[in-house]
Amino acid sequence: MILSRRLRPSPFEQRAIENGASAFTLYNKMILPLIYESYEIEYEHLCKHVQIWDVACERQVEIVGPDALKLVELITPRDMSKCAVGQCKYAPLCDENGGIINDPIILRLAEDRFWLSIADSDVNLWVKGVAYGRGFDVRVFEPDVSPLAIQGPKADDLVAEVVGEHTRDIKFFWFTDEIIAGTPVKLARSGWSGQGGFEIYLQDSSKGNELWDVFWEAGQKHNLRPGAPNLIERIETGLKSYGQDMTIENNPFEAGLEKYIDISKKAEYMCREALEEVARTGPAKRLVNLVIDGRLEKVMRSDWRVLDSKGTPIGEVTSRVWSPRLGTNIAFAIVQTSHAAVGTKLSVDADGDIHSATVRDARWRSA
Amino acid sequence: MILSRRLRPSPFEQRAIENGASAFTLYNKMILPLIYESYEIEYEHLCKHVQIWDVACERQVEIVGPDALKLVELITPRDMSKCAVGQCKYAPLCDENGGIINDPIILRLAEDRFWLSIADSDVNLWVKGVAYGRGFDVRVFEPDVSPLAIQGPKADDLVAEVVGEHTRDIKFFWFTDEIIAGTPVKLARSGWSGQGGFEIYLQDSSKGNELWDVFWEAGQKHNLRPGAPNLIERIETGLKSYGQDMTIENNPFEAGLEKYIDISKKAEYMCREALEEVARTGPAKRLVNLVIDGRLEKVMRSDWRVLDSKGTPIGEVTSRVWSPRLGTNIAFAIVQTSHAAVGTKLSVDADGDIHSATVRDARWRSA
Repeated sequence: MILSRRLRPSPFEQRAIENGASAFTLYNKMILPLIYESYEIEYEHLCKHVQIWDVACERQVEIVGPDALKLVELITPRDMSKCAVGQCKYAPLCDENGGIINDPIILRLAEDRFWLSIADSDVNLWVKGVAYGRGFDVRVFEPDVSPLAIQGPKADDLVAEVVGEHTRDIKFFWFTDEIIAGTPVKLARSGWSGQGGFEIYLQDSSKGNELWDVFWEAGQKHNLRPGAPNLIERIETGLKSYGQDMTIENNPFEAGLEKYIDISKKAEYMCREALEEVARTGPAKRLVNLVIDGRLEKVMRSDWRVLDSKGTPIGEVTSRVWSPRLGTNIAFAIVQTSHAAVGTKLSVDADGDIHSATVRDARWRSA
Repeated sequence: MILSRRLRPSPFEQRAIENGASAFTLYNKMILPLIYESYEIEYEHLCKHVQIWDVACERQVEIVGPDALKLVELITPRDMSKCAVGQCKYAPLCDENGGIINDPIILRLAEDRFWLSIADSDVNLWVKGVAYGRGFDVRVFEPDVSPLAIQGPKADDLVAEVVGEHTRDIKFFWFTDEIIAGTPVKLARSGWSGQGGFEIYLQDSSKGNELWDVFWEAGQKHNLRPGAPNLIERIETGLKSYGQDMTIENNPFEAGLEKYIDISKKAEYMCREALEEVARTGPAKRLVNLVIDGRLEKVMRSDWRVLDSKGTPIGEVTSRVWSPRLGTNIAFAIVQTSHAAVGTKLSVDADGDIHSATVRDARWRSA
């Protein structure tokens, strides 16, 4: 893996590497440490204790100015008028065909100022392009902001100790302004796991070590370890990864994001017509939870096709991992709606090896 | 390095790995093999023989429809009315402030149809956003197109043998439609080296092995080897890498791209006002060729500052490598215009080690 100036360093990269980060991916042209010891070890620890994650690759797109709310409303089918200052909303962004451009968490910093905390695509270019084309009175840019996550059941105790007891009262998907390690941050109760915790938006990339260290030191008595968004935990929890489980080829109905959109919202939004049509006719495909039998050793580099009982391809696996807790392979797959009902028996062609598979519900139950 | 479905396979990935690709980067969310044996060995070979490169990561953005030319003109300060069907133009894309969004080669496929063969940023989102905002009658999307490059002084002989003698008459930055290995391609005389050669735009990603193999077999008597865009060769030749040597923070004057723009062109383009202003006042910074003395062992992970004779920071190194031919470190650096004249003596702070440095001209000469 060759690095260059094109691949920007995270403010937490030095600490992540010093603490044993051993496997990485690239995300928004930045290194994302994914494994320290193993997915399994870090999964067990994350579900019991507390971890510190370098997720600086969740870049921010700032939208500020008189037309900021109008622009944010235009690019998402979610009703952002309901997002108060100090609140966050998970909101798919869609193009005029309903295709998903990204699925950020949107933070409302002021009436006329937002951050889009993005998945892996150049949302700044999309939003700048739309704003330019419509002649909106806004400024769109990537500020110097890098999130650090504190995740796990002991996150509340650790953050209360470092930042103050008042942080226990921060509601899910709300944030406050704090000074931590002498530097101003936004502290949000959010994060890419189902184990609870916070995301801390550092606003000065020169202060990465200081911010890491203050949690590291206080965390020792809580059994704090370095970690990362965990493939096992996120699939068990049902967190979808943009670019992997859904792309611009999918609309929010296909991706199972109905509860994060409000297609009859009042404000103008660019995919209204497209999504109203999908709502009328029903989506052609569905992202489902799938259990796959047998041992799967191979890395999924090509598309693994999902087959119906006659062997006809009806979809693809998008993510998969071995779940130690469930004792089986758990996966997400995008399949034809006719084969998406919980309990449907299917099979998966894993580079030529056929494995039986069953659609499960969001909590991995059979019916 | 952890792969996932988010990081798309190249049609040539299997052949690149079978043939010994040993170091990679990610580019447009796709693996780009960069080294087989070493930069030095591949540099020597590239300058004498012929190489086959997996550059599928040079993705295409297709713009097609009645407003296609109007849109292409809008997003670049280059005069695209002068680009004939069958011709390519290197054309920086700029936002309304003149900031460079990308620097594609634009192929004109028909009067109303273009491909933007892009560097590493989501140009499709930018162009889709602008087109939506302006209500242009076009379709913008990423087609199934993956370039394979044949580069080096023997490329002409190899391509003539495989495709036909008529290919010797293809002019620089023109392309033809061909059938190679039974699959339709665009064959362009272009490529990311100064050693000559072709880029072959495969239009069916299932045919990657076949296309590779036909050149591989015919290439054996020309001493064909696998290769990649070569850091030594591209810096010697003066090829700038988007995201590394220039970003959205730079305008085409700062990046030394004056000869690829026509700021008084007739068509509407969005950065006209911004670039006219830079042309009037002169750019504040300049990307220059810099020779750096001494041995530089370190990987450039942080910004290496360029200092004036008093030790004051006046810029940053953007790329650098050891040149065996010139027997010194060659680099690109972006420096204040006041320090950009050929012959200016500067120094470079390489993570605390100070090295003397001199601005050179585009051919690495002192004056």
